[in-house]
Amino acid sequence: MAAAAPPPPPSSAPIYLPESTPSGDTLFTRIRLATIDDVPHIHKLIHQMAVFERLTHLCEATTASLSATLFPPNPPPPFTSFTVFLLELSSSPFPPSSAAVNPHFSPLLKSVHLDLPIDDPERDNFRSNANDVNLLGNDVIVGGFVLFFPNYSTFLAKPGFYIEDIFVRECYRRKGLGKMLLSAVAAQATKMGYGRVEWVVLDWNVNAITFYEQMGAQILPEWRICRLTGDALQSYAHVNL
Amino acid sequence: MAAAAPPPPPSSAPIYLPESTPSGDTLFTRIRLATIDDVPHIHKLIHQMAVFERLTHLCEATTASLSATLFPPNPPPPFTSFTVFLLELSSSPFPPSSAAVNPHFSPLLKSVHLDLPIDDPERDNFRSNANDVNLLGNDVIVGGFVLFFPNYSTFLAKPGFYIEDIFVRECYRRKGLGKMLLSAVAAQATKMGYGRVEWVVLDWNVNAITFYEQMGAQILPEWRICRLTGDALQSYAHVNL
Repeated sequence: MAAAAPPPPPSSAPIYLPESTPSGDTLFTRIRLATIDDVPHIHKLIHQMAVFERLTHLCEATTASLSATLFPPNPPPPFTSFTVFLLELSSSPFPPSSAAVNPHFSPLLKSVHLDLPIDDPERDNFRSNANDVNLLGNDVIVGGFVLFFPNYSTFLAKPGFYIEDIFVRECYRRKGLGKMLLSAVAAQATKMGYGRVEWVVLDWNVNAITFYEQMGAQILPEWRICRLTGDALQSYAHVNL
Repeated sequence: MAAAAPPPPPSSAPIYLPESTPSGDTLFTRIRLATIDDVPHIHKLIHQMAVFERLTHLCEATTASLSATLFPPNPPPPFTSFTVFLLELSSSPFPPSSAAVNPHFSPLLKSVHLDLPIDDPERDNFRSNANDVNLLGNDVIVGGFVLFFPNYSTFLAKPGFYIEDIFVRECYRRKGLGKMLLSAVAAQATKMGYGRVEWVVLDWNVNAITFYEQMGAQILPEWRICRLTGDALQSYAHVNL
């Protein structure tokens, strides 16, 4: 039987008691439906994604065009069209219920243990515009997003979800946050009785493929995407069928 | 100078005069929005597609499930969700305007010259249920369909259309009818200011790839489809994110 450790010597230094959720070591996360107020952040995240993919020359999105297409004046019900989940992060717990609660989707809350504190050099650019943010003393940062919409399988005769984009800012990667975003879409699909969740990956992105397979996805090797766009698409504007 | 041919000898056989549109040589086509009345035909077409792809074991669609998912009780406006164009064929011209005209989409009419008459062994199974069909003496046959729905490009900040299925019955193939269905979707996309039309093709289907490239499509070689379905998807039903 090992001897018990002796009590520490008396000292004038402050005594640190272990905390169950030390603030520097825990990242509180929330996934919620985005609103039109979030468009400036969504725009910046899309631009960062284009930089990551070295495709900025193809990125034409503006805050105006995103607002008009993602949040039209008479929006269809959530999940029936283009839908954005926003990932928010805080060093303080999120309120269990808040004004951000939407009748169609209750925000998903989780805390993540961190081995090291995260230095976010862009935190001032990504302060959340959530309408309950003041409750938390403005300490809520947008860390990523996922954009998805319904697709359809004729064989299943069921809708599914197609994930167009999933993105986590660089300083928050490798902490399970991408998995949380993908899981949130999958959970919503099961809740709605949908048959599939699908997305695409670049064939050389081995790390992503491994990650997706670990999440239970099949990679379909034989299918290729066909795309009609730009002038080739415009040539059908006045086509004589 | 060649001698003129002598007049034919008098005969009791009927005299055939050349016609500008001999009924056996012209196929009149119409592309219109499908309605719930067309579901039995859509179901048979999906089943034929599954047979062609040797995937009948994966085809779970029933007329009931197709009706419920493609034509729900409070349908969203055409083109904002799952949309079916039906291809109808007749040996007589379609009426220029008819009860089948939808305020959102005027049917597309075209006539196709045939070198040989088509023998359709299934014509009795594919008589159209269009509400103006009696005007044509029941001579309207369903020949194919295309099912599509909106997708979204964050880089363009624009919707597009994704074509899930495009199918023409076997006896009507190689007459430009598939091109007409695809062109109808592309024309609708340009009409709505959309940025892309996309679909997928099997990498070994060289004929289809050549056809799509001739229509102006790019084939994207590097992207692979990821699919989460069945039990793997259901495992996210009660996931702790």
